Amino acid sequence: MLSGYGRYFEKGFVRHKETHEHLAVYGQKPEVMVISCCDSRVTPEGIFHAGPGELFVLRNVANLVPPYEETEGQHGTSAALEYAVTALKVQHVVVMGHAKCGGVQAFRENANAPALKGDFIGRWIKLLEPAAIAMACMPVDRIDDPQLAMEYAGVRQSLKNLHTFSFVEDAVTKGELSLHGAWFDIGSGELRVMDPHTEKFETAVSGTPTE
Amino acid sequence: MLSGYGRYFEKGFVRHKETHEHLAVYGQKPEVMVISCCDSRVTPEGIFHAGPGELFVLRNVANLVPPYEETEGQHGTSAALEYAVTALKVQHVVVMGHAKCGGVQAFRENANAPALKGDFIGRWIKLLEPAAIAMACMPVDRIDDPQLAMEYAGVRQSLKNLHTFSFVEDAVTKGELSLHGAWFDIGSGELRVMDPHTEKFETAVSGTPTE
Amino acid sequence: MLSGYGRYFEKGFVRHKETHEHLAVYGQKPEVMVISCCDSRVTPEGIFHAGPGELFVLRNVANLVPPYEETEGQHGTSAALEYAVTALKVQHVVVMGHAKCGGVQAFRENANAPALKGDFIGRWIKLLEPAAIAMACMPVDRIDDPQLAMEYAGVRQSLKNLHTFSFVEDAVTKGELSLHGAWFDIGSGELRVMDPHTEKFETAVSGTPTE
Amino acid sequence: MLSGYGRYFEKGFVRHKETHEHLAVYGQKPEVMVISCCDSRVTPEGIFHAGPGELFVLRNVANLVPPYEETEGQHGTSAALEYAVTALKVQHVVVMGHAKCGGVQAFRENANAPALKGDFIGRWIKLLEPAAIAMACMPVDRIDDPQLAMEYAGVRQSLKNLHTFSFVEDAVTKGELSLHGAWFDIGSGELRVMDPHTEKFETAVSGTPTE
Repeated sequence: MLSGYGRYFEKGFVRHKETHEHLAVYGQKPEVMVISCCDSRVTPEGIFHAGPGELFVLRNVANLVPPYEETEGQHGTSAALEYAVTALKVQHVVVMGHAKCGGVQAFRENANAPALKGDFIGRWIKLLEPAAIAMACMPVDRIDDPQLAMEYAGVRQSLKNLHTFSFVEDAVTKGELSLHGAWFDIGSGELRVMDPHTEKFETAVSGTPTE
Repeated sequence: MLSGYGRYFEKGFVRHKETHEHLAVYGQKPEVMVISCCDSRVTPEGIFHAGPGELFVLRNVANLVPPYEETEGQHGTSAALEYAVTALKVQHVVVMGHAKCGGVQAFRENANAPALKGDFIGRWIKLLEPAAIAMACMPVDRIDDPQLAMEYAGVRQSLKNLHTFSFVEDAVTKGELSLHGAWFDIGSGELRVMDPHTEKFETAVSGTPTE
Repeated sequence: MLSGYGRYFEKGFVRHKETHEHLAVYGQKPEVMVISCCDSRVTPEGIFHAGPGELFVLRNVANLVPPYEETEGQHGTSAALEYAVTALKVQHVVVMGHAKCGGVQAFRENANAPALKGDFIGRWIKLLEPAAIAMACMPVDRIDDPQLAMEYAGVRQSLKNLHTFSFVEDAVTKGELSLHGAWFDIGSGELRVMDPHTEKFETAVSGTPTE
Repeated sequence: MLSGYGRYFEKGFVRHKETHEHLAVYGQKPEVMVISCCDSRVTPEGIFHAGPGELFVLRNVANLVPPYEETEGQHGTSAALEYAVTALKVQHVVVMGHAKCGGVQAFRENANAPALKGDFIGRWIKLLEPAAIAMACMPVDRIDDPQLAMEYAGVRQSLKNLHTFSFVEDAVTKGELSLHGAWFDIGSGELRVMDPHTEKFETAVSGTPTE
């Protein structure tokens, strides 16, 4: 890893040297928050070709936003969201799902199991339950691949949950904040964006990569 | 953002096309989990020059690991940690702090305030309280810059908290997992690594960037 | 002990006999409340050369004032404070820390321990946590001796907590009550007084004892 | 007060200079804990003619020991008791009441009032309720002065409460700790000691002061 850092320091950092110095002095002012998965195959900055200071990135398992909760305890995702919207005043929040999501897969495999394995991961992906229920009750589109359908449903549910935070809802109502759904295919590199009206996911860039 | 994606798809993705296809079929098998901040100026994949499939990345405000807790509720960070260590069996967990951390700054500014603003961010950064107490009680090194001292203390505390998870402790004891502390200077691009024995942070690569 | 009492009765009491008789009839009217440690090496009446009726003395472990709390339960320190300020109308409250404080030491040693020993002492000295946090976040002065730094921080925090009681705050605002911080060196007999503006502790009487 | 300290430093401290230096280096090792009132007319070190390092002194309103309680919150008196018995291993605990006790008086005056004044003092002296009940039900001795009777009853109740702490009970059973009741007359300087069997208070030193 340190040799990787060496390469970065000699090449990558130099490219953004002045930006880094400026950001260190004046602080970050990103316009976009991306909520993405921890998955090692999904790097928001890479996918959006973003330089330092451009994306405020929250990454958790299965890119989930819990609903607003008044319970005690440390709500890491809600804290990051609150900071991004109220302190940094980002203009966009993008929830980005992805193919082959291990969190979604674990949820699907354990849906009928008596108890979910592990203390935390089982409880965390229970956040997908309303997504599964919504999908079962009001299928937006019939997709043959149940894993993909659930990945989409997870993004839709997280977008729905975003609206349960009053500071998000206020900013959206005032036109200061937009919410977006997206999905990344780790195998083909394809990015799909959710249409806010139909809630369907459409390919963002149709061309094939030039090799 | 979509034009950025276009550039990525035409250049970045092509470079890793086979890797992506392989990863999509065989799944991710990252050896390293990085716990980093949401800050737009800190991109683990960039700093470590890591390609797809290499880093399992959790990002939350102020790169915090809470201690093991048996309380109800969705513990997003603990869930990601559990997934990385027990399911993906990563060999390294790196907690990476950084300069000018807004979460640490908010904690410091609010330490004496009657009440912390916001529902979530205030509670979340309270995870830094044991870090502050540990620093006050057993100062590892006297640093004139209190913001930097607190950033270091936060990384040390998160490493300490990692040990409260039995699955982490077990893997460390068996020699299957190593824990690391690091700190990134967003202004100069310098990476500092924590010595596990002295708990001091030392510059990892001393050379200046070749311009 | 009874022989000690005999000596007191024959010498000490006689000296203050009339004062005692007067105080028994007309009641106490002390102008000063001292909040000091139970430590056997710190006697407020001795240090301030005070006779009967002069000092209203609260002594608890580590001379701590908890913040105002609405919870149930018997708050002994708050009760004594309330009695002194609202019933006796003292004009000064002095929080006096001291060197080698066992309560502070226990706090420092246990800051990183998994669990504090004992049912009560561990919980009581947790009142020092905000002191440690304040010190970590906004160090007033850098002191090489962490025990001393924490002793000072404890006094500062107790003074801060005094302001959380409305009856204290009211009396201070009306100019009827002053709050003071002090620290006693049990080894050298030196008394240090906190400057209310800089919050630094300065030697009160600089001369050496005449032997 | 500072001039009083000056006098102390030049005279009082010098007398105990070597003791102070020794205590600073080797720590305190008092054999006796005194639980006394905050009252400005009652100074345990004075009454027992005790020098530095001899008495571990807790002072609260009305010299009360609450019963063992498992509730949350900071129990200052219990904490000091625990520290004295388990850490310092004192051999004696003396609960010393006194004449004209304002806490006892407030309790008596408010016993029939609908609500006790103040947030804290009222709740604190409610600890005397079992003392009053015990006195009403099982009067040890009939005393014409109800204030004095209640002051005695308070000491008896505190001694009873001491036994509810398992660490006290254990030490007493092993013969390592003795509990004592005492009462000081602020007007005459008389000290009365409670007979452990009859629970009556008897004058400790009968002679009149030599003037």
